[in-house]
Amino acid sequence: MRVGKSDGITSISTADAASITIRGRDLASELIGEVSFTEFFHLMLLGLEPTPVQRRMLDAVLIAIAEHGMTASVSAARMTFAAAPESFQGAVAAGILGCGNTVLGTTELAGRFLSAGVDLAAGNPARMTDVAREEIARLRAANQRLPGFGHPLHHPIDPRTDRLLNLADEVGSVGPHCAYARAVQSEANAAFGRPMVMNVSCAIPAVMLDLDFPMEALRGIPILARTAGLIAHLAEERRRPMGFHLAAEAAEGVRYEPSE
Amino acid sequence: MRVGKSDGITSISTADAASITIRGRDLASELIGEVSFTEFFHLMLLGLEPTPVQRRMLDAVLIAIAEHGMTASVSAARMTFAAAPESFQGAVAAGILGCGNTVLGTTELAGRFLSAGVDLAAGNPARMTDVAREEIARLRAANQRLPGFGHPLHHPIDPRTDRLLNLADEVGSVGPHCAYARAVQSEANAAFGRPMVMNVSCAIPAVMLDLDFPMEALRGIPILARTAGLIAHLAEERRRPMGFHLAAEAAEGVRYEPSE
Amino acid sequence: MRVGKSDGITSISTADAASITIRGRDLASELIGEVSFTEFFHLMLLGLEPTPVQRRMLDAVLIAIAEHGMTASVSAARMTFAAAPESFQGAVAAGILGCGNTVLGTTELAGRFLSAGVDLAAGNPARMTDVAREEIARLRAANQRLPGFGHPLHHPIDPRTDRLLNLADEVGSVGPHCAYARAVQSEANAAFGRPMVMNVSCAIPAVMLDLDFPMEALRGIPILARTAGLIAHLAEERRRPMGFHLAAEAAEGVRYEPSE
Amino acid sequence: MRVGKSDGITSISTADAASITIRGRDLASELIGEVSFTEFFHLMLLGLEPTPVQRRMLDAVLIAIAEHGMTASVSAARMTFAAAPESFQGAVAAGILGCGNTVLGTTELAGRFLSAGVDLAAGNPARMTDVAREEIARLRAANQRLPGFGHPLHHPIDPRTDRLLNLADEVGSVGPHCAYARAVQSEANAAFGRPMVMNVSCAIPAVMLDLDFPMEALRGIPILARTAGLIAHLAEERRRPMGFHLAAEAAEGVRYEPSE
Repeated sequence: MRVGKSDGITSISTADAASITIRGRDLASELIGEVSFTEFFHLMLLGLEPTPVQRRMLDAVLIAIAEHGMTASVSAARMTFAAAPESFQGAVAAGILGCGNTVLGTTELAGRFLSAGVDLAAGNPARMTDVAREEIARLRAANQRLPGFGHPLHHPIDPRTDRLLNLADEVGSVGPHCAYARAVQSEANAAFGRPMVMNVSCAIPAVMLDLDFPMEALRGIPILARTAGLIAHLAEERRRPMGFHLAAEAAEGVRYEPSE
Repeated sequence: MRVGKSDGITSISTADAASITIRGRDLASELIGEVSFTEFFHLMLLGLEPTPVQRRMLDAVLIAIAEHGMTASVSAARMTFAAAPESFQGAVAAGILGCGNTVLGTTELAGRFLSAGVDLAAGNPARMTDVAREEIARLRAANQRLPGFGHPLHHPIDPRTDRLLNLADEVGSVGPHCAYARAVQSEANAAFGRPMVMNVSCAIPAVMLDLDFPMEALRGIPILARTAGLIAHLAEERRRPMGFHLAAEAAEGVRYEPSE
Repeated sequence: MRVGKSDGITSISTADAASITIRGRDLASELIGEVSFTEFFHLMLLGLEPTPVQRRMLDAVLIAIAEHGMTASVSAARMTFAAAPESFQGAVAAGILGCGNTVLGTTELAGRFLSAGVDLAAGNPARMTDVAREEIARLRAANQRLPGFGHPLHHPIDPRTDRLLNLADEVGSVGPHCAYARAVQSEANAAFGRPMVMNVSCAIPAVMLDLDFPMEALRGIPILARTAGLIAHLAEERRRPMGFHLAAEAAEGVRYEPSE
Repeated sequence: MRVGKSDGITSISTADAASITIRGRDLASELIGEVSFTEFFHLMLLGLEPTPVQRRMLDAVLIAIAEHGMTASVSAARMTFAAAPESFQGAVAAGILGCGNTVLGTTELAGRFLSAGVDLAAGNPARMTDVAREEIARLRAANQRLPGFGHPLHHPIDPRTDRLLNLADEVGSVGPHCAYARAVQSEANAAFGRPMVMNVSCAIPAVMLDLDFPMEALRGIPILARTAGLIAHLAEERRRPMGFHLAAEAAEGVRYEPSE
C-alpha cells in the first residue's frame, strides 16, 4: 500500500561504520568543536553555514521565544512529568504539543501573512502602507485575526519585538519583511484606533524572512527554543516538584454542573 | 485533590507587562543579541552563564548527538507528518518520544553509571581500574548491559566519542568522569575479549559531568539536539515528502501469520 | 496572564472521598458492571445513554476503523516503543499523533463536507443530486480533494464502507447524511468518469451524523478506535519485537544525495 | 543499520484490495455489526473472543478507570488543545502521556506485584497471608511504596475497587490474584496500623489477571479508557473552552524566586 510517490532521497545526512556526514561535512572533524549549535542548526536546515549576521539573528530569535514563565505548555509538561516520571521525553513532547496555531506556531501564520504582503507590494516600500491597509481591511471584513498581533500580558509593546527589530536595524539585516511588518503596525493602530501590540511571533518571521530563513522551517524556531525552556523546567521539576500542585490549582478553578 | 506538597516556587523566569526576566537577567536588554542560544540554554538550566570551555563543550555534545540519518525517531516523525500535515509540532513530538532508554536517553543511564563509579573510586584515578573491573563483572553477573557501550553501525570506534574525548583533552576539561570512562573502556575490552565501542551516549555524560552539568538535565542534551535534527527533516519532508514511502518500505518487511 | 474568558464549568464528572459521579450517574453503582464501554463513551460525550441502534452503530464504526495492519501510525508507534521501552504511553501517543487530516482525521473533514451538503439541500433528498454535483464541481475547480474518497489499497470499494452503509439500512438509521453520501458517490463517479471509492472516513460520519453524534467529537472515533489497535500492536511488540526491524526496512529505501 | 533481529511477523491483521482480516476474522462480514468494541479489543489483543464473563469484566474495568474529573492529564490535554486547536490528536496524545508510573500506569506495577505474590504462594490461598506480610515488609525495608495502595481523595475505600472486587465475586471470576490482593489489603492494614486504601490500579490487575488478561497489555486498559475520557473533555473544550483558564489558575499558584 503506497500513498503518493517518493524518490527516497534525503540531503541531510548519512553514516557509515567510521564516519557521519552532515550536509557534506564530516561531523567529527569539521563540525564538533568547530561550530556553535545555532550554526549547526542553520547548516542542517539550509545546507549552508550562516553568515555572522544570520547566526546572530538566529541566536536572538531562539532566545526571544524560548521561555515565558508558567505558560500552558510548561504547565502541561510539568504535570505530565509528575504523573509519568519515567519518561522525560514524554513530558517534553507534551509541552511541544502546545506549540500550536494559537500560541507559538503563530510564527508561521504571521510569516505567511508578511510574505503575502511583501509579494503584493512587489517588495516596494512605497506600496507597503497601501497593501497593509487593504490586507487589514480584508481580514477585518472576514472577521479574522491579524496574525502576530495582540498579547494577553505585554502592552503597549512586546519587549521582545522591540529588541528584535532594533537588533535587525543595528546589524543591517532589515529588508522588506521588517519594513512591511512596521507598515502593518502603523496601519493596524490607525484601523483599530488604539495601539496594537506586534508580538514576538510577528517579529520573528519579519527578521528571519529578511535573512532567507525558509518559510517551511519557521515553526521550528519556537519549537526548538521552547524545547530548551521545557528541559530547564523539567530539570527543576525533578529537584523541586510542582506538577501535581499545578494540577490541583487548575482543578480548583473548575466546578461541575451536571446539566449543559 | 492534592498529591504531595509544593511551595510553588520556580527560579527560571517571570514576566510583567513591560519585561521578561530569566534567571535574574532582563531578556530584552541583557540576553537577546548578547548571548548564544547554547549559552542561554546553560543559563536557563543552571542559573549561570557558562565559561568558554563549558560553552564550547555544550555546543560540541549538542552537535555530536543531533543527527544520524534515517533513524527510528526520524522515520516516526516523517511518517507522522505525512499523516498529519496540519501539526508540525505533533511530528516533532512523535520523534522526541523515541529518545528513550534504548536509544538516546541512554545518556542519562550512562551518566549514572559513570557517576557511581567515580563515587566508588572516591574520584581517585588510581582506583578506577579496579572499580571499573568490579562494576563490569557485577553487570555481567546480573546479565545487564554496559550502558553507553556498543553500536549497531560504528565500530571499532564511534567517531563522535573519539572527537569529544579528544576535545576535552584539548580544552583541558578532563576530570574524573572522563578518566573513569576510559578505565571502563579498557576493562571492558579485557573482560569481553574484544574491542567494545564506547558510544556517544557514554562520551556525552563523561565530558559534561566533568563540567558540572546537572545529572537531572543530561537527558535534555539528546532531546534538544534531536529536536534540531527533526526540524531539519520535517522541513525537508515538506519540500520533498517521503513519509508514506518510509511507511510502505517498513510494511513490506512484515508479513501476517494468523497463529502465534 | 489570561487568554479569553471561561466560567470554569464542566459537565462531565466530579468526585469526592466516597464517590465518583459521571454525567449525573454514580460510577460505582450505576455504571461499572451495568453498561458497556461503548455505551459509557456515548454517555460521557453526550450526557445520554445511547439507544440500542446508536450503541450498535457506534460499536460498528469503532471496529471498522480500529486496525488496518502495518500503517504509518502503527509503524511509528512500534519504532518508538523499541527506542523507548520504558514508556508504553509514549508509544501509544506517537501512534495517535498520526491520526491527522490526511489519514484518519479525515473523518471530521468528510463529516463537515456531508453536513454542508445536507444543509445546502435543506435535508431534501430530491435536491441532493444537484447539490452533490455542484459541490464536486466547486472542489474540482478549486483543485481540492473530495474528502473521504479514494484509497491506496481498497478498490473498487472499501469493504468497511459497504458494510457500514448496509448496516445502517438494516437497523433503519439511514438519514440525510447517508443519503447525501450516496448522492456524492454517484455524482463523483459521473464527474470523474471512473468508480470513486468512498472510504471508511466518509462512511463513518455519514452513519454517525444521522444518529446525532456530535460533529466536534467525530475525530474521537478513529482516535479511540486506533488506540485499541495500537495497544494490541504494542503488546505484540513486547512479546515479538520488530520496531527496529521496521526502522531498518524504512531506512533501506532511502539514500543520501548531498546537493538538493 | 540493524538493532536486534526480527522475523517481521505480525499476527494481528492484514488487508488486500477487497478485504481486511483481523485475527483470522473477516472484518466486514464477521466483526462490524456483530461484536462490541470491547469484544473486538479483547480479540485483537488475545486472538480469541472473550467469554461473557471476560467481556463483562473488561467493560467494567475500562469504565472504572476512564474518567476522574479535572486530573493532571485532562488539564494538560485541555491546555494543549487551547494552544493548538488545529490538532485534536495532539491534545489527546498530551493527555495520554500522563498515563505514567505514578498515576495510571500503576496498573502494571501493581499487576507485577500481585503476580509475583501469587507465584511465591504457588497460587495456594493458605500461604498468601504469609507471602503478603513478607512482601510488605520487604518493600517497607527498601523504603518502597506498595503499588496500587493509597489515594489522594478516596478514603477509607476507593469506591471503584469495592465495586470491581464485588463484581468479580458476583460473576464468579475470583481467582488467586483477587485472593492475594485481599490478603495484601489485610496485611497492609496490620503493618501500617491504619486502613490502607486499595485503589483502582490494584483492583484492575487483580480481576483481569484472574481472567487471563495478558500482563504486557495491562497498561493498555487505563490508556484506552482515558482516551475515551479525554475525547469527551476535548469535545467539551471545543464547545466551552477552559484550557487557558486552567493554565492561568495553575500559574497563579506559582511565584518566581530568583535564587535557588
